[in-house]
Amino acid sequence: MSPEPAAGRRGRVVIVGGGFGGLAAAHELRGADVDVTLVDRMNHHLFQPLLYQVASGGISEGDCASSIRAQLRRQSNATVVMAEVTDIDVEARRVTLDRGEQLDYDSLIVACGAESSYFGHDEWQETSCDLKSLADAVELRNRIFGAFEEAERTDDPDARREWLTFAVVGGGPTGVEVAGALALLARHSMKRHFRHIDPYAIRVILLDAGDRVLPAFSEKLSTKAARGLAAVGVDVREGSKVTSIDEDGVTIEGAGGEERIAAKTVIWAAGVKAAGLTEALARATGASTDRGGRIEVQPDLTVPGHPEISAIGDMANLAGSDGRPLPGLATVAIQQARHVARAIRQGHPGASTPFRYFDKGALAVVGRGRAVCEIRGLELWGPPAFLTYLGVHLYYLGGVPGRRMRVLNAWATTGLGSRANRVIQRELPHRHPSAGAATGV
Amino acid sequence: MSPEPAAGRRGRVVIVGGGFGGLAAAHELRGADVDVTLVDRMNHHLFQPLLYQVASGGISEGDCASSIRAQLRRQSNATVVMAEVTDIDVEARRVTLDRGEQLDYDSLIVACGAESSYFGHDEWQETSCDLKSLADAVELRNRIFGAFEEAERTDDPDARREWLTFAVVGGGPTGVEVAGALALLARHSMKRHFRHIDPYAIRVILLDAGDRVLPAFSEKLSTKAARGLAAVGVDVREGSKVTSIDEDGVTIEGAGGEERIAAKTVIWAAGVKAAGLTEALARATGASTDRGGRIEVQPDLTVPGHPEISAIGDMANLAGSDGRPLPGLATVAIQQARHVARAIRQGHPGASTPFRYFDKGALAVVGRGRAVCEIRGLELWGPPAFLTYLGVHLYYLGGVPGRRMRVLNAWATTGLGSRANRVIQRELPHRHPSAGAATGV
Repeated sequence: MSPEPAAGRRGRVVIVGGGFGGLAAAHELRGADVDVTLVDRMNHHLFQPLLYQVASGGISEGDCASSIRAQLRRQSNATVVMAEVTDIDVEARRVTLDRGEQLDYDSLIVACGAESSYFGHDEWQETSCDLKSLADAVELRNRIFGAFEEAERTDDPDARREWLTFAVVGGGPTGVEVAGALALLARHSMKRHFRHIDPYAIRVILLDAGDRVLPAFSEKLSTKAARGLAAVGVDVREGSKVTSIDEDGVTIEGAGGEERIAAKTVIWAAGVKAAGLTEALARATGASTDRGGRIEVQPDLTVPGHPEISAIGDMANLAGSDGRPLPGLATVAIQQARHVARAIRQGHPGASTPFRYFDKGALAVVGRGRAVCEIRGLELWGPPAFLTYLGVHLYYLGGVPGRRMRVLNAWATTGLGSRANRVIQRELPHRHPSAGAATGV
Repeated sequence: MSPEPAAGRRGRVVIVGGGFGGLAAAHELRGADVDVTLVDRMNHHLFQPLLYQVASGGISEGDCASSIRAQLRRQSNATVVMAEVTDIDVEARRVTLDRGEQLDYDSLIVACGAESSYFGHDEWQETSCDLKSLADAVELRNRIFGAFEEAERTDDPDARREWLTFAVVGGGPTGVEVAGALALLARHSMKRHFRHIDPYAIRVILLDAGDRVLPAFSEKLSTKAARGLAAVGVDVREGSKVTSIDEDGVTIEGAGGEERIAAKTVIWAAGVKAAGLTEALARATGASTDRGGRIEVQPDLTVPGHPEISAIGDMANLAGSDGRPLPGLATVAIQQARHVARAIRQGHPGASTPFRYFDKGALAVVGRGRAVCEIRGLELWGPPAFLTYLGVHLYYLGGVPGRRMRVLNAWATTGLGSRANRVIQRELPHRHPSAGAATGV
């Protein structure tokens, strides 16, 4: 039953997605007797765990992304195509690209990741910022530094307060990290920059619908994280369910009833769902999906009924040893990629042995020089956790000379030393004078 | 007649523009008994001489720009406003901003620079890229790296040739530097990245209407520069007048008659004119302007009839000792700014003594590790000129820790070491499949 490549023809592996999973799969196939084609809509691999640093002006765009071609340049069996996969013909074993080109495969690894989910309120996307792509991070940076400029410019105290209020929705690692970075940026590294803004008037509010931030960590670490955020000035509001977002703020429902928070900048870090192609793949294979749109894969990561198709990373739902779905972490995607790729190396069309996740733990940075960290039952917090966080991220970052030093510098100085990246790449919108400087809107 | 500030009131200086001139003027007024307000549409000062390195992926956006606020944060008499000046009332001595706010001044320094001029063909702007702002450089980088991706993706040899042909219009320093950087990028630092593109198939054509590149330099240095460009693979075409630009290429008229160059990427570096506000200032003061829209200022840099208004840098036309207008160089703008600001420090509303330009020379980098350089009659070329170029630019760059090293690294490795910045921040456009992969357009 194994569709071995015909004699004289090398196996063809198509990988969809150049994120942590896709790139690790390609690397693992280095030197294997297959032709690898990696397809991604963008030309770069994104180091997503650092996107929040781009948004807060700590590091530059280039320090958070690297050319996929550069990463695979010495791998002679790999070809990179910058394109979008629009269709998968599972019978013909062929993917179609956005300009109609077709790629035949013997093995298909789908690793197209996740995108933001607004829980049925797609209109919230229009006024809030999320943090999934490099363009998102640059846009958020423009909006954060633009908000400071607006606050400096207006004479109206109400308008100034709204510009200086930042609401972060979602208490997972991204929400926690972006809230902490924003609070530090506002209070510590913008000193003396403005003449009319008091750094201590800047409010960063972290809204989470659950009863604690970082729910994937232990209760103890959640408490540590909440305290760490409070220490740098973040207003942490657990049990706050967002019921509406518009351009002037966010409405929440909490223990004390409905509340309106006037904030010109709302950052969405609350939910993800499997990205675009996942649905097409589920339809084509009849695979079932979970609430987040992720494909429920076999224990060996293949799609049911299709041993030649594997789905890995954020778009796949596979239970871990505790029976809960594995988390959307880079380490999960990388381990899954290697598992699948090794089997392909050995001549299988996809993996055939069950995947076991080796839990390397989870980390999140909280404010300045502090983090929480859970490694195989060991819990760390404060500076020791931060050092662990640094080590792990710098290890995985790699790739570009000097980058580790720049990123380390950004953390060490909380952006103090890297004013280079606080550039707003556009003008402030011109407002009609009759609307008046007084309203500032 | 000198409108000294009334007793008890400090003089108010408004500076329009945060480029080399405006920023130098603000710095020169540090500690002076005046209130300085610097107005710029953007929040950053741009190190324009390095923009070409951003476009070719050598350095990141942040390495070419720095926050104006950060630069003035320790200057307590300076306020920065991110806004556009829309009007100047020279009688009331008041400028109006885009939201209707007004700023009164005792002294006004206008330093709003230059923008690209298309010699009456504004439609060329739609399909060509220029290189005046950070957004321009990022857009050009997207287009350059996008063109390589398009060439890699298409099967049609004609389309591939068009994507791999880059036409640079204008043989001044910007045109010469961008052409050299592109040729080096294509031939040397993209090796192994592509499977279908031959680096030697990439053509960079530098078009200049005059009879030699770098006409501001001596004939000998022009010849050296043209040879240096040819050595790295640039096709230098002097005497080529552009008669049309569209999305598929450029038409030129040369000694051999009309010629069509099919090129998907056309870079405009041919002409500049004084930027937006200049016209309003000329109208308000009755000052005359030259062909490039620059205001013909008095020998002391003030606008005729208005000793309280100075115009400096690229928007001002003042003859040098040789009777020719001073060139649009950072050193000219900086010296003029200091001249004007010193007079204001001494209690004058503007400068009152004639400005004398101390010619520090001119520099342009040509290809790899080579430059041409003219300093007070001394001519240098090749590696010695390049070292001089490095020294001068690194000296003036300053500002942000680590930046000098990164920029030096970009030059030293011609981008080899800095693949970080080759990011295309968007997808390739989706083309209708029926148009076909074969045409690639």
